[in-house]
Amino acid sequence: MSNRPGEDDLIARFFAPIAAPEGLGLIDDAALLLPPAGAGLVLTKDALVAGVHFFADDPPNAIARKALRVNLSDLAAKGAEPVGFLLALALPGDWTADWLEGFARGLGEDANTYRCPLFGGDTVKTPGPLMVSITALGRVAGGRMVPRTGVRPGDLLYVSGTIGDAALGLQLRLGAPALGELDAASRQFLLDRYLLPRPRLALAPAMRQMAHGGMDVSDGFVGDLAKMLGVSGVSARVDLARLPLSAAAQAAIALDPALFQIAATGGDDYEILAALAPDEADAFEAAAAQAGVAVTQVGEALAAGEAPLFLGRDGAPVAFARGAFSHF
Amino acid sequence: MSNRPGEDDLIARFFAPIAAPEGLGLIDDAALLLPPAGAGLVLTKDALVAGVHFFADDPPNAIARKALRVNLSDLAAKGAEPVGFLLALALPGDWTADWLEGFARGLGEDANTYRCPLFGGDTVKTPGPLMVSITALGRVAGGRMVPRTGVRPGDLLYVSGTIGDAALGLQLRLGAPALGELDAASRQFLLDRYLLPRPRLALAPAMRQMAHGGMDVSDGFVGDLAKMLGVSGVSARVDLARLPLSAAAQAAIALDPALFQIAATGGDDYEILAALAPDEADAFEAAAAQAGVAVTQVGEALAAGEAPLFLGRDGAPVAFARGAFSHF
Repeated sequence: MSNRPGEDDLIARFFAPIAAPEGLGLIDDAALLLPPAGAGLVLTKDALVAGVHFFADDPPNAIARKALRVNLSDLAAKGAEPVGFLLALALPGDWTADWLEGFARGLGEDANTYRCPLFGGDTVKTPGPLMVSITALGRVAGGRMVPRTGVRPGDLLYVSGTIGDAALGLQLRLGAPALGELDAASRQFLLDRYLLPRPRLALAPAMRQMAHGGMDVSDGFVGDLAKMLGVSGVSARVDLARLPLSAAAQAAIALDPALFQIAATGGDDYEILAALAPDEADAFEAAAAQAGVAVTQVGEALAAGEAPLFLGRDGAPVAFARGAFSHF
Repeated sequence: MSNRPGEDDLIARFFAPIAAPEGLGLIDDAALLLPPAGAGLVLTKDALVAGVHFFADDPPNAIARKALRVNLSDLAAKGAEPVGFLLALALPGDWTADWLEGFARGLGEDANTYRCPLFGGDTVKTPGPLMVSITALGRVAGGRMVPRTGVRPGDLLYVSGTIGDAALGLQLRLGAPALGELDAASRQFLLDRYLLPRPRLALAPAMRQMAHGGMDVSDGFVGDLAKMLGVSGVSARVDLARLPLSAAAQAAIALDPALFQIAATGGDDYEILAALAPDEADAFEAAAAQAGVAVTQVGEALAAGEAPLFLGRDGAPVAFARGAFSHF
């Protein structure tokens, strides 16, 4: 097709305009970064495949944004500020210049918004589905990264934003019958939360300063929290009555109470789990409020490595048949 | 299948054993690198797709090695020493634990050989072909990376190793009839050169110290050299009679002289192109000999940005119908 450029032209036309100086105009084999003195570099890599992590017919700008944002969410949970990213894009045979223009526009806008410029990457063709693999680099002053393994007994457990919206949005995309009566505004809110994660980068400084342990919630609140507790060698008591739910999620669960379990265990939240000492709680809540990110205390870490105790909204222990949604 | 572990188990079993301390046991969301003071970080990302960059039935250890080595080849050309890498692996539905064990073993052996440990990554499933996306990090002391754009008029043009072996190996894989009479040892040599690139990392110090410009030859000698000259704004005179050919490539070309063009323009060489001042030539050749890497002077850069002049083995100008092999 005549309007489809070759690889070099494609890079020059769509990606060079959104590249950082470190990317050297995207005409070299590599990027060159002069790391800030005394800082640690946080490196994360999340790959997304059409039909697995997003729908192939999602708008191209949303696919690009999601691919970058899921990586930025990891940086936020680690207390890191974005530095830049590299992109590998595998394009199926039917790509068009229009599609790629939308993809690059969304990517460039988010790179700008989140101050995480493009450093370089690779574009290849694939006989399979579209795949986007991003490596994001972040910076932590003094080399202090919030580890997943750092939760201590007695720590308070916090989660940012609201949980379950994206999983319910996915149910809507899949046509879940119980959600047929949901109002239009709630539908739109949940669909949008599935389509576009909101990386909580504004919370990164408070995480770095105060959190003993942290991770982002990508594979479901219950499963991811259990993972963080497990690698920290601690248990916890978690009150699901405190799980922060959006008005739209509450409306959906009112229509079908079974959806609460999907909200608590479904994936794609891209919120932050944080564990911190009780005497830091006021300062953490104040810093989060200052940053404009809602945070909710949902439980407390306990000594010993038994399975965490989840108390349901009625106060009784809950067992989850399926702790985590796995993209794998 | 009962012997197929889930994602976390898969990482713990196959990849955690080959991870560096920076990878934090591969149980965190990210890796943490404390960059060496005063050094620049060179970042490169090459993705490989089954059926495009390798054959799906190649041995899994060779697929892993190739995916890492094509990235190491970029680092070598930039004069960088390896620091570590991140891996995104998209596995099709039919993967087996045996396959993954072979993949991880090859990856770990090469990571060890080339001192480029695994920092982290992501494993996802795909309804499409296997895809491996690697981001490699390298270090250049003093922040001096050899740029592709740095070739100056009067520079001598060098290439490492031998050219065309991998492209001829690919012809063998594809069953090119003219190669039916090639002796077994030559066949094996060429097939192996296609299967397993040899990143010329031993040449990196000499590149960093002496080369004005450099790149690795991945998409064919003629096309890649023309690219480097183009972005440097110079022309060149190149004597194809000097193109270094292995004994096996010479034997193949003797059977069918038309294969010379495939050797000169085919891809997957993963050798290094270097441009340096004539008064550095002796020192560069001595350093390369010391490093055990053959280098051959193939031409000279000229002022002005006209298309480079390639002189054939008979001394007459050659026009190439197809300058570069493109994986895209």
